[in-house]
Amino acid sequence: MKIALDAMGGDFAPQAAVDGAVLAAKALAGKAQIVLIGQEDAVRPLLQQHGADAEDLILVSASQIIEMGEHPAKAYQQKQDSSIAVGYRMLHAGEVEAFCSAGNTGAMLVGAMFSVKPVPGVMRPAIANFVPKLHGGLGILLDVGANAECKPEMLEQFGELGSLYAQYVLGIDRPKVGLMNLGEEEGKGTAITQATHQLLKVNPHIHFIGNIEGRDLFNDKADVIVCDGYTGNVMLKMAESIYDIMAEKQMLDDPFFNKFNYEAVGGSPILGINDNAIIGHGVSTPTAICNMLQQGYQMASSGISDQIKNTFKS
Amino acid sequence: MKIALDAMGGDFAPQAAVDGAVLAAKALAGKAQIVLIGQEDAVRPLLQQHGADAEDLILVSASQIIEMGEHPAKAYQQKQDSSIAVGYRMLHAGEVEAFCSAGNTGAMLVGAMFSVKPVPGVMRPAIANFVPKLHGGLGILLDVGANAECKPEMLEQFGELGSLYAQYVLGIDRPKVGLMNLGEEEGKGTAITQATHQLLKVNPHIHFIGNIEGRDLFNDKADVIVCDGYTGNVMLKMAESIYDIMAEKQMLDDPFFNKFNYEAVGGSPILGINDNAIIGHGVSTPTAICNMLQQGYQMASSGISDQIKNTFKS
Repeated sequence: MKIALDAMGGDFAPQAAVDGAVLAAKALAGKAQIVLIGQEDAVRPLLQQHGADAEDLILVSASQIIEMGEHPAKAYQQKQDSSIAVGYRMLHAGEVEAFCSAGNTGAMLVGAMFSVKPVPGVMRPAIANFVPKLHGGLGILLDVGANAECKPEMLEQFGELGSLYAQYVLGIDRPKVGLMNLGEEEGKGTAITQATHQLLKVNPHIHFIGNIEGRDLFNDKADVIVCDGYTGNVMLKMAESIYDIMAEKQMLDDPFFNKFNYEAVGGSPILGINDNAIIGHGVSTPTAICNMLQQGYQMASSGISDQIKNTFKS
Repeated sequence: MKIALDAMGGDFAPQAAVDGAVLAAKALAGKAQIVLIGQEDAVRPLLQQHGADAEDLILVSASQIIEMGEHPAKAYQQKQDSSIAVGYRMLHAGEVEAFCSAGNTGAMLVGAMFSVKPVPGVMRPAIANFVPKLHGGLGILLDVGANAECKPEMLEQFGELGSLYAQYVLGIDRPKVGLMNLGEEEGKGTAITQATHQLLKVNPHIHFIGNIEGRDLFNDKADVIVCDGYTGNVMLKMAESIYDIMAEKQMLDDPFFNKFNYEAVGGSPILGINDNAIIGHGVSTPTAICNMLQQGYQMASSGISDQIKNTFKS
């Protein structure tokens, strides 16, 4: 199995990308090879410094870079030899089983939509993130930013997508799906959350437990937390800021709060597309990159894309 | 000056309410009298236990109680001798300068809308909450639940209301107003946040600093954080849950995180109505009640309602 990494993506690329890839190649030795995609001149010397073994680390050349500030759609179209465009071409061609990048989030989404494309039946793919649970394990929160505005039918599908991921990748049996709302009662919330509640309630593919509130993000009420991308993004960034404040205050001895660290998981999968793509944090460290690649391996070995395709075929 | 308290409101009423009122009467001695509104049989003995001085604590009888689970509008209409209805009547009649309750939030809102009424020109009053800032002081977040869905014009007014409160009650000179969004760039967000951005940008009454993100809640970018009631409620409850988790883990030595405690401020003012009303947390302790009453005194002495009326008159 081959897992690809955008060697040019992220604030500390290519150094952090190569360092992370070397770590992942060791961790996944015998199970998967890491394919580094980027400018050969920049990446080759870093690989040589590591004395990295060509068997576990393959370098594929891509001459262009989509920078962090570039307009995603324009850059993706114009830079067809960028590491992100090459990565998606390889993913679409089946040459790699997953593609990971800590680069331009928008370009990663554009590539997902126009190259590997949404699964037929999925209205809009979502970006998922993971939340540490106070009593152990992870929950999955989606959408966290791909779709600022969502129709009830989209949110319903996020419930299904998250549920499949929780089941097949996180190994949670019969995941509990909760709808983020401002009250637990069925009639609470906006017209959209009210309509979504009704759809989720009768959806036969999921185990819907009803509305949850902001206070329930970290408890065991729901394994899958459904919300629009605006709300998910606000919650995600708020959690990140709390981690940063605690880090500054050297309060991270606590194992629960320590798990707020984005590094621990590595990246945010795009769910509802035909292949496995993961977006990493811009500031990704080698540890984060390594974990993102391992997450890519887990997604690929779980067959989650096929599970999603089968569910939405009907 | 007289500040009224619903003696029957909150999970631990009337005990916590009376205890808090006694504390506040001492703290505000010579400046304000506390008016306790509730069932005389229940409240009088508690007051006598304290040996409370009749000069600082006045008991006004109200025979009915609106329970936490009751339908707000129905209960408010049917229970015209409830402590909440009596409190609003006294507020409207000018017999007290502020009314505070840790009781049924919905009934407090209904009373605000139908008794003292919104300030002419204010489309929809908002519930405000306070966020501790990492480098000291408080920010104001609104709406946190009165309006799950908001039009851009409502959100614009929340910016004005919050700005006036920050200026006249919190004493912040030229408060910075930020719009909660999923990215800093002007074009980011939903159709509603995009339209709101344009309105806030040209509003001459406020100092708009642009979009902020979930990570900016606790930093110094904005003093006033504008969002719809759904998003504000999710953020508020998420912050509360973090405080609860830290309390459980005995991590509250830290002065910043300690300020996440709702007790420190006491309550959430309803902004945009003709008088001063504050809603307390259902679990309010005597300390929380005491702080809510002091906050009521601060609001009343600041003349914030008149400032709001003057601003929206034009």
